[in-house]
Amino acid sequence: MNQFISVGDVPSVPRIVETALDYKKNPFKDKGLGENKTLGMIFLNPSLRTRLSTQVAARNLGMEVVVFNIDKEGWALEMNDGVVMNGNTTEHVKEAAAVMGQYFDIMAIRTFPGLKNKEEDYTEKYINQFIKYAGRPIVSLESATLHPLQSLTDVITIKERWQQPRKPKVVMTWAPHVKALPQAVPNSFAEWMNAWDEVDFVITHPEGYELDPKFAGQAPVIYNQEEALEGADFVYVKNWSNYNDYGKITCTDESWMITNERLRNTNNASVMHCLPVRRNVVIADEVLDGPQSIVIPQAGNRVWAAQAVLSEILKHQ
Amino acid sequence: MNQFISVGDVPSVPRIVETALDYKKNPFKDKGLGENKTLGMIFLNPSLRTRLSTQVAARNLGMEVVVFNIDKEGWALEMNDGVVMNGNTTEHVKEAAAVMGQYFDIMAIRTFPGLKNKEEDYTEKYINQFIKYAGRPIVSLESATLHPLQSLTDVITIKERWQQPRKPKVVMTWAPHVKALPQAVPNSFAEWMNAWDEVDFVITHPEGYELDPKFAGQAPVIYNQEEALEGADFVYVKNWSNYNDYGKITCTDESWMITNERLRNTNNASVMHCLPVRRNVVIADEVLDGPQSIVIPQAGNRVWAAQAVLSEILKHQ
Amino acid sequence: MNQFISVGDVPSVPRIVETALDYKKNPFKDKGLGENKTLGMIFLNPSLRTRLSTQVAARNLGMEVVVFNIDKEGWALEMNDGVVMNGNTTEHVKEAAAVMGQYFDIMAIRTFPGLKNKEEDYTEKYINQFIKYAGRPIVSLESATLHPLQSLTDVITIKERWQQPRKPKVVMTWAPHVKALPQAVPNSFAEWMNAWDEVDFVITHPEGYELDPKFAGQAPVIYNQEEALEGADFVYVKNWSNYNDYGKITCTDESWMITNERLRNTNNASVMHCLPVRRNVVIADEVLDGPQSIVIPQAGNRVWAAQAVLSEILKHQ
Repeated sequence: MNQFISVGDVPSVPRIVETALDYKKNPFKDKGLGENKTLGMIFLNPSLRTRLSTQVAARNLGMEVVVFNIDKEGWALEMNDGVVMNGNTTEHVKEAAAVMGQYFDIMAIRTFPGLKNKEEDYTEKYINQFIKYAGRPIVSLESATLHPLQSLTDVITIKERWQQPRKPKVVMTWAPHVKALPQAVPNSFAEWMNAWDEVDFVITHPEGYELDPKFAGQAPVIYNQEEALEGADFVYVKNWSNYNDYGKITCTDESWMITNERLRNTNNASVMHCLPVRRNVVIADEVLDGPQSIVIPQAGNRVWAAQAVLSEILKHQ
Repeated sequence: MNQFISVGDVPSVPRIVETALDYKKNPFKDKGLGENKTLGMIFLNPSLRTRLSTQVAARNLGMEVVVFNIDKEGWALEMNDGVVMNGNTTEHVKEAAAVMGQYFDIMAIRTFPGLKNKEEDYTEKYINQFIKYAGRPIVSLESATLHPLQSLTDVITIKERWQQPRKPKVVMTWAPHVKALPQAVPNSFAEWMNAWDEVDFVITHPEGYELDPKFAGQAPVIYNQEEALEGADFVYVKNWSNYNDYGKITCTDESWMITNERLRNTNNASVMHCLPVRRNVVIADEVLDGPQSIVIPQAGNRVWAAQAVLSEILKHQ
Repeated sequence: MNQFISVGDVPSVPRIVETALDYKKNPFKDKGLGENKTLGMIFLNPSLRTRLSTQVAARNLGMEVVVFNIDKEGWALEMNDGVVMNGNTTEHVKEAAAVMGQYFDIMAIRTFPGLKNKEEDYTEKYINQFIKYAGRPIVSLESATLHPLQSLTDVITIKERWQQPRKPKVVMTWAPHVKALPQAVPNSFAEWMNAWDEVDFVITHPEGYELDPKFAGQAPVIYNQEEALEGADFVYVKNWSNYNDYGKITCTDESWMITNERLRNTNNASVMHCLPVRRNVVIADEVLDGPQSIVIPQAGNRVWAAQAVLSEILKHQ
């Protein structure tokens, strides 16, 4: 594996999940693998779980880590080609990415979408500029349209908790939010669920909130949340802004919030969320504080996902 | 020891002081103790000495360190329970603390008081939320009402400099400042002086500036600074805002500034301050630049205090 | 070597260049040299290359590194003596530098000029305060008037690329910019070219843009850029603001931008720039994207320059 931007970069989902679960049992077994290798973590946007878990993962492999909040500790990058740079951008990504590629063995980048220009976001202009110019393996720490470290974590979390012979029913449900959020997490979760053939995957959201078919694939979409949740073994909750009416909030229906009542007809479903979650807006306190929530161990698995990804790239180098 | 929030967490003050002074002589003697353990340092507020010395201390023990300026690199945390989070806070401390507890073996937190709501500050709401939800040993890097790493440093500094058989007279004096500052340092210093029975401890401040009796204890309070300083062996200088008229500046009397003249009737006292100090407001240049100031070696001892605390927690795990 | 502020601190330019090129071939050969030593990197200003390359260099030597963005993670420092600190500065550099000297074995500082007060900038007031009070070897990460890590990098880059028996012609040319920039890079480059007797060095800039003679020395200045560039083997491009009419932009002549046309009469010159560079303002896309640009490997050499400097200081301790 020489980059990690989407599920398409992963040779085998079951194998990388197994690698991650092995690390969970024995975090330091490959401590020599990253010796004298440096991971550069470049943040164009805020981060908590991704920032912290990836640092821990890299150190578990013996890698050096350099964290760079380029937006705060550096300056604004120019992402467009051919521009006369007499405005607010100080350095072109062509130089910034190529120079960082001189210093780091692997580069990890977080860059959010602007949610203004669908084409710019969905061509993944920003992270693709880094891929093009860095000359090093790039790991996405969440890009405009995908968040693969999160999705790998989610697969790991489902895998380790599901012991029955039948496939679990996994329902991804839209939920309300006060801000317009990217589609990266739901796109990515859908992409991974579709690629991993060990679940029955269903999507539910208000009409109009259809995701890009490139990621949603053939997954059934049910517009009635209650109906969709029936018999669910895992409920994956996430808000996203409208993909069609791009970046807009077109539904504020609070009844989409996940409550115990809403989970009543599930199969005692485990409730997942990528976090951060706005309590009593997206998911009710009673659910997050109750026995069905697995959001904390889910977030804990971020370490093993990152460690598996980094180790696959290190082994490939 | 499984947390370090106040002197009450320390089984024996003399023993932890001895541990610290041992580390000062041989910083790397326990380099294997922290192997494969990670300290997460979470800053909700700025920091210089605490930030830097604690990193050095952890590395001396072989620990990994991850620093996270959650206010700048992350987002605002919700600290209140039961809230509908449709405002400015992005994540509840219940999740943030619990998730960080998944990544770190020990968590160190800095969080200042708001100085608006005495009850909220004095119940230590913020750091207690971390203690409650992190599931890991918590080290205070200064909380709303206490700064125990500073106070342990102060005990170490007095201990290593005092060789006489009689107890030294230690006077903590209020001094002026242009901003309303927390009571954390004076509360904490008083608490530690009271718990450590190797000094004669006196407090002096303008009338009305009494500290919470929970921390000031039975220490004599003398409202006349000159009288209080008479015969002092150590003068501990610190401004604080009013505890009774909570968070207010009710005295701006510049004569409380520490000058050579003010130190005249001391026993050639050593002058201590936790830093940062506003020169010629709190303490005059002539004192800070003169032979009686020990503020720099005092600050240097922060490393050994932090190292002793982390090692006690590591040994307990 | 016990500090690195200017070329004058370097006992032998050829020898440190050789040390750096040795590290380029074998980055980890001195991994034990920095064991149990900590480098403190203090930023009063933004940084990309310097920040990242110096961290990598220090780790290659086995040093611990602590990065501190004092402007963002700490507070404003007072640099003037005798001040009553009742304004916006929270801590005096006397304390801040001395305290950090208690924690770090080597301190590296970045501090830009204000470009308002020539004397203040050219006496290097800020970095000199750190030198005076830290009590530790200080490495400049760029100061008000010099950027020696950049210049050492530049010498390395020329050295490794020039194999002919004759001296190369190196032309430093001013180029336009939209912002008033420091003279640190051109001052420093001139100083190092003058100290290193392996090149023929020429400076070209608009009339009035003369650099401080202390740094420019006896280097010929040619006001006609085309004439100056004739036969150049290396073209070192850099904007700077006016030194005489201090900190002002007195020329906006776009014809000074480096284009392929401008390089026509050079000896197929290699084009260098310290970066960040504003494309199509300072240097045209066609040059930066063409075969004559060596700006990326030049930036890559920052690691070996920093590593050579740190190792010389460590060996001296």
